[in-house]
Amino acid sequence: MGILLKAKMIAKKTIERMETGSAIRKMFDEGLSMKAEHGAEHVADLSLGNPEFAPPKAFLEALRRAASEPTPHGYMPNAGYPHVREAIAGYLNRHGYFENAEARHVLMTTGAAGAINVVLKTILDPGDEVIVLRPYFVEYRFYIDNHGGQMALVDTNEDFSLDVEAVAAAVTRRTKAVMLNAPNNPSGRVYDRASLEALAEMLLRKAHEHGRAIALISDEPYRELLFDDTAFVSPATVYPNSFMCYSWSKSFNIAGERIGYVAVNPAAMGEDRDALLDALAMTNRTLGFVNAPALMQRAVAEAVEAEVETGHYAAKREKLCAALDESGYTYVKPEGAFYIFPQTLGPEEAFIRRAREHLLLVVPGSAFGRPGHFRLSFACDDRTVALACEKLRAVAGDYHRERAQVEPVPRGAFAHKAPSPEAGTKGHDASR
Amino acid sequence: MGILLKAKMIAKKTIERMETGSAIRKMFDEGLSMKAEHGAEHVADLSLGNPEFAPPKAFLEALRRAASEPTPHGYMPNAGYPHVREAIAGYLNRHGYFENAEARHVLMTTGAAGAINVVLKTILDPGDEVIVLRPYFVEYRFYIDNHGGQMALVDTNEDFSLDVEAVAAAVTRRTKAVMLNAPNNPSGRVYDRASLEALAEMLLRKAHEHGRAIALISDEPYRELLFDDTAFVSPATVYPNSFMCYSWSKSFNIAGERIGYVAVNPAAMGEDRDALLDALAMTNRTLGFVNAPALMQRAVAEAVEAEVETGHYAAKREKLCAALDESGYTYVKPEGAFYIFPQTLGPEEAFIRRAREHLLLVVPGSAFGRPGHFRLSFACDDRTVALACEKLRAVAGDYHRERAQVEPVPRGAFAHKAPSPEAGTKGHDASR
Repeated sequence: MGILLKAKMIAKKTIERMETGSAIRKMFDEGLSMKAEHGAEHVADLSLGNPEFAPPKAFLEALRRAASEPTPHGYMPNAGYPHVREAIAGYLNRHGYFENAEARHVLMTTGAAGAINVVLKTILDPGDEVIVLRPYFVEYRFYIDNHGGQMALVDTNEDFSLDVEAVAAAVTRRTKAVMLNAPNNPSGRVYDRASLEALAEMLLRKAHEHGRAIALISDEPYRELLFDDTAFVSPATVYPNSFMCYSWSKSFNIAGERIGYVAVNPAAMGEDRDALLDALAMTNRTLGFVNAPALMQRAVAEAVEAEVETGHYAAKREKLCAALDESGYTYVKPEGAFYIFPQTLGPEEAFIRRAREHLLLVVPGSAFGRPGHFRLSFACDDRTVALACEKLRAVAGDYHRERAQVEPVPRGAFAHKAPSPEAGTKGHDASR
Repeated sequence: MGILLKAKMIAKKTIERMETGSAIRKMFDEGLSMKAEHGAEHVADLSLGNPEFAPPKAFLEALRRAASEPTPHGYMPNAGYPHVREAIAGYLNRHGYFENAEARHVLMTTGAAGAINVVLKTILDPGDEVIVLRPYFVEYRFYIDNHGGQMALVDTNEDFSLDVEAVAAAVTRRTKAVMLNAPNNPSGRVYDRASLEALAEMLLRKAHEHGRAIALISDEPYRELLFDDTAFVSPATVYPNSFMCYSWSKSFNIAGERIGYVAVNPAAMGEDRDALLDALAMTNRTLGFVNAPALMQRAVAEAVEAEVETGHYAAKREKLCAALDESGYTYVKPEGAFYIFPQTLGPEEAFIRRAREHLLLVVPGSAFGRPGHFRLSFACDDRTVALACEKLRAVAGDYHRERAQVEPVPRGAFAHKAPSPEAGTKGHDASR
């Protein structure tokens, strides 16, 4: 009884997925073996977006209370506890997201990943297209494919701001949704009101032209992590047919607990609004989430006004940006989240390899559909940030020396020329 | 801007699902309005499988500790915390499920529903068939469809035991899995070792014949709820290519917390076993579950040996069975879980309506693919059980009287004739 049967257990589609997802996995594995070989303290790992800071006190206290009291742990309605949904709706109204949100506009979910999958499953028919802006969070590809959708990639501008005309050009009769990550992972870009309003206007026009609703899915787990007084405008508040997908993973540092929600813009969907909410709740059930984890629902509802600490991120960002400036990297200073997405100093693959030689772990831009870049995460401790700054300088130093040997150019000048996207994926560094 | 766009937001497929799922939903809604109208204390609601008993003390203490200590709440590997997976593997070995399970055979999941969806997504290519035994848990239909599979229904015997020949006849070149619920919801049947071994042998033979692996997916959330010294044999331990899907929802009464696991039979899948485990972990991530809720993983691992209380269920079962016996219902005494699945006294639809007139809420057998039956859940308090017993007698009394008027037969005799499946779905009660 053997090989024949065993080799065929995994679906072909799953094997394809594993290959797609293997770039980041390979990097993680290399990181682990690098740490084992050289000692973790010598490796600057800026590859992960997993903040291990303490959650807010108010949340921890609410959690402790919920776990100590004889709270029910059984099923509740698939949309979540009514009092929890009401608390979220109240928060959204008080903080100016919506004016008239009610409990029935909120569905509690298993994190933002759960929220996005529930929305996509609810609205996508096979072959429907979802427009995603490049650079994009790599999981979107899987989420859309899970539910038979087709991903249509549209580049943002060079500075990662919205290119509304490019989005307009990509809208077809099959377009069912546009998906935004605001603030954006990996670029840290926060979309401004003017560009979001232009997007909303264009989408409404296109929807009428094609006689078909187009949804906006706004993925907002980083929205409290903002720098330099950047104003956050939720895309879901600017366009009526919107789904706001939120998670406390990053704001409360509880990514492992899987708690978030979808809020449907109250202006959305008119007379079939109740059907839409019913559909989301049913999909939450039938996808196997059933309901968001009960205890966490109670805890986040009680701590919904807990203050989110971002000061430590601002300091880390400053240090990394100073190191990038000094060494002649080209980058857009992030306005939110905890990532920087600079251009590589030459072909991407060789640059990532060179960074690894210096024990600096970063994610290649091609993993986000934007080759010629690399992502730094500053969801790490200060020691790691300081180490990373040294290593960014050292990597740049290598490039300066090599360039100087080949063709003498003014120091730093080469760094400002963006590499072509192809260079990042196909190029090989002849110098190695 | 209006109706045109708004009416088209929900996918056609979702609307179809809502219609499929509407029978049970309709019953719930009717139950709510029935309670509002007549007072909840006068309604015997045996429709739900949501035990609201207290979780085991050991679990509550472990939960309290985990919530009070400065435990990490961030991401962990998608398969779960290594120490938690190890604790589960140890439990499975100590309790004789497996002999050599290791942490790497266990994937922590968002309940059994999460577990089943992860397994199906990992192994199904579009069009693959999954054999499901009738009567079946209604959600299986959605789970299989979520991942492009086709459900193939096979009837169990009259007493709900395994009909291995019928399963064999349903296996085709497209069969990728057989799915069992053990103990079964709604019948309470526990499959015995001999029938499971016959099933395993047949599946291995068919797999070789077709040159294709066939998986066994065993859904076991009720396995600790057993009566009359019934021995539980996990189907996943009898057949090598098995996925054991478990949840603490019913054993610990924590259905709202969404915590469970998949354990892969260590004998399964030979040289691609590691790939299979990697694939399950990746699917857990890409379906949007990401990982099982962190705090609950810690709590169940610590309380893994907590004793499961089933005494109260046994007493409730006895009372309901006594009432069924007295009133001449035909049924198979459940060996496990907390459901009884008797035959209706005449056409199903009319019987369910008659029960409702008596303020007795039960689920029609057609919701489980086996018309002419009804499901009683005894996951309820003793007062409700006592009330339900009265009502079961009253409903039977109605049928006795009506039959007596039409054709005088010996008391109770008519109940032993099983109605045809068609009668349950199409029949109308002329007497109303």
